[in-house]
Amino acid sequence: MVNSQVVVDPQVKNVLDALKGRTINHVYFVACGGSSAIMYPNKYIMDREAKNIPSDVYSSNEFIHRNPRKLGENSLVILCSMSGTTPETVKAAEFARQKGALTVGFTNEPTSPLAQESEFVVKYEWGAESVAFNTNLGLLYQLTMGVLNVLEGNDKFDKMVNSLSNTQAAFEKAGKQFADRAQQFGQSYKDEKVIYTMASGANYGIAYSYTTCILLEMQWIHSNAIHAGEYFHGPFEIIDEEVPFIILVGLDETRPLDERALDFSKKYGKKLVVLDAKELDLEGIDEELKGYIAPLVLNYVLRRYAEQLADARNHPLSKRRYMWKVEY
Amino acid sequence: MVNSQVVVDPQVKNVLDALKGRTINHVYFVACGGSSAIMYPNKYIMDREAKNIPSDVYSSNEFIHRNPRKLGENSLVILCSMSGTTPETVKAAEFARQKGALTVGFTNEPTSPLAQESEFVVKYEWGAESVAFNTNLGLLYQLTMGVLNVLEGNDKFDKMVNSLSNTQAAFEKAGKQFADRAQQFGQSYKDEKVIYTMASGANYGIAYSYTTCILLEMQWIHSNAIHAGEYFHGPFEIIDEEVPFIILVGLDETRPLDERALDFSKKYGKKLVVLDAKELDLEGIDEELKGYIAPLVLNYVLRRYAEQLADARNHPLSKRRYMWKVEY
Repeated sequence: MVNSQVVVDPQVKNVLDALKGRTINHVYFVACGGSSAIMYPNKYIMDREAKNIPSDVYSSNEFIHRNPRKLGENSLVILCSMSGTTPETVKAAEFARQKGALTVGFTNEPTSPLAQESEFVVKYEWGAESVAFNTNLGLLYQLTMGVLNVLEGNDKFDKMVNSLSNTQAAFEKAGKQFADRAQQFGQSYKDEKVIYTMASGANYGIAYSYTTCILLEMQWIHSNAIHAGEYFHGPFEIIDEEVPFIILVGLDETRPLDERALDFSKKYGKKLVVLDAKELDLEGIDEELKGYIAPLVLNYVLRRYAEQLADARNHPLSKRRYMWKVEY
Repeated sequence: MVNSQVVVDPQVKNVLDALKGRTINHVYFVACGGSSAIMYPNKYIMDREAKNIPSDVYSSNEFIHRNPRKLGENSLVILCSMSGTTPETVKAAEFARQKGALTVGFTNEPTSPLAQESEFVVKYEWGAESVAFNTNLGLLYQLTMGVLNVLEGNDKFDKMVNSLSNTQAAFEKAGKQFADRAQQFGQSYKDEKVIYTMASGANYGIAYSYTTCILLEMQWIHSNAIHAGEYFHGPFEIIDEEVPFIILVGLDETRPLDERALDFSKKYGKKLVVLDAKELDLEGIDEELKGYIAPLVLNYVLRRYAEQLADARNHPLSKRRYMWKVEY
């Protein structure tokens, strides 16, 4: 069923109400690891859509120490930490607030330190049961497009909210559609010592997340998220018939970069896992927004790929040697 | 000998003269691969120093397809390609100029396509004989600090020009100081299949360059340039006694991130190559600017490390399997 009239999440609406009449001259997206990765497609949307407002993505500790001179009362700082306890991100919220910035903390724990340090809190759902509209990326998209709507009159806000309400159906269809391929991936790649990911534009953050959180962190497999636009300026020399690449092909404006990288990889590589967003059934998602929303669905599919890889390797996604176990 | 009064490069001065009285509301740094890597420390300087002007770094093709909505006649677009023939960068200059942006092309070839497509050209020196002041990074620093001086009255411009004129001496001292260690690096790491790099702040681009151009492109060794601020949010799970890391420790404000990553790595890793900018003799370089200029010197030192690695592996830095050889 395709929803055609939905309202924005009330927590996001609170933030948008507070923005009315306020001057914002910069948006900072601040988080760590997987929470940082979901900021990238939002920066992509800002770049494509914002008439006047620039934006940056920073890892939380870099943000604090870099201490951007522009940061101040006309800044909007959007932060994210699932547990709300990531020390660097909690500190970044405190730092930004002291500078007078408007802070919004995305977290699964509405009583966490991040929630306490942020002026506004957006609680999101997490885990296998969570609904696309209420995930961190789903809610962030609502906020990003809402910010552009309130501050610059961007007309894609309603379309985004409606499209996100139909994304759950896209998740479910994609999950079924790619189930066999995900299992095959796990079986075929379980003994690899290195797996690269590649993407561009709205999808780059998804590749970054897979490399950083799934392969390096959870599977201890060497990896690097190659930007498809940089591939031919160095990284492509690494590919041969033995080196595996997961290549994301998006629907946004940078798709030609992905296609070119894929064409070359097919010629000289043999271990290619291709996730082309063109294969997805995105019914109910506005034509204009499919490029922006594809990362959400690809990320959902890649999670299945991660689970199958972990199963096939008998190396659970929860397995760590340092995180939460030793001092750092 | 320490120079204390030097003038800015005349090509850079031309650009700065053209900026006087002009409104610039965004600086875009646009290039590919190694030429892109030198943009990162300039973005760092802009973030730290600019009161009002935001900036972004994009790979050339991403820049064109992303097509930032803000790009227009109030934009300054700084591009770089050594040969001046990198098709994506030449096209990016043409694209930006059509939008009315002020374009500056850095290249070693002043009659190249990039030079022809750019409104202003800065020819830089390249190779073993080139002088720090006239390298791509040396000239870019002059332009970046000059832009901040002309548009916002930043007072570090003269200090930057004078400091850069003394950087050649720092190169030479560092070259001698690290010669043995570079050779030892080549011998010790010649059989490694994967080598990570790590850095933050002003130095991240240098780590990116080493990973992308030296290890992946020229040596076909697996690599990823880990941001020290992201290390504890995923990537650190990959380190053990067998996994080599080259860790840059800078002098800029993000040094605490590097130190923390190094401390942890020392505890659980054994194959560590540490280049700490504190060891460098930076006589004649202004105290306030040492953090900004350290990447230039570390990059110079790392080139020696690359040469020694290539020698030890009997795999020349010029060796390619695809670049300039096949269609892509």
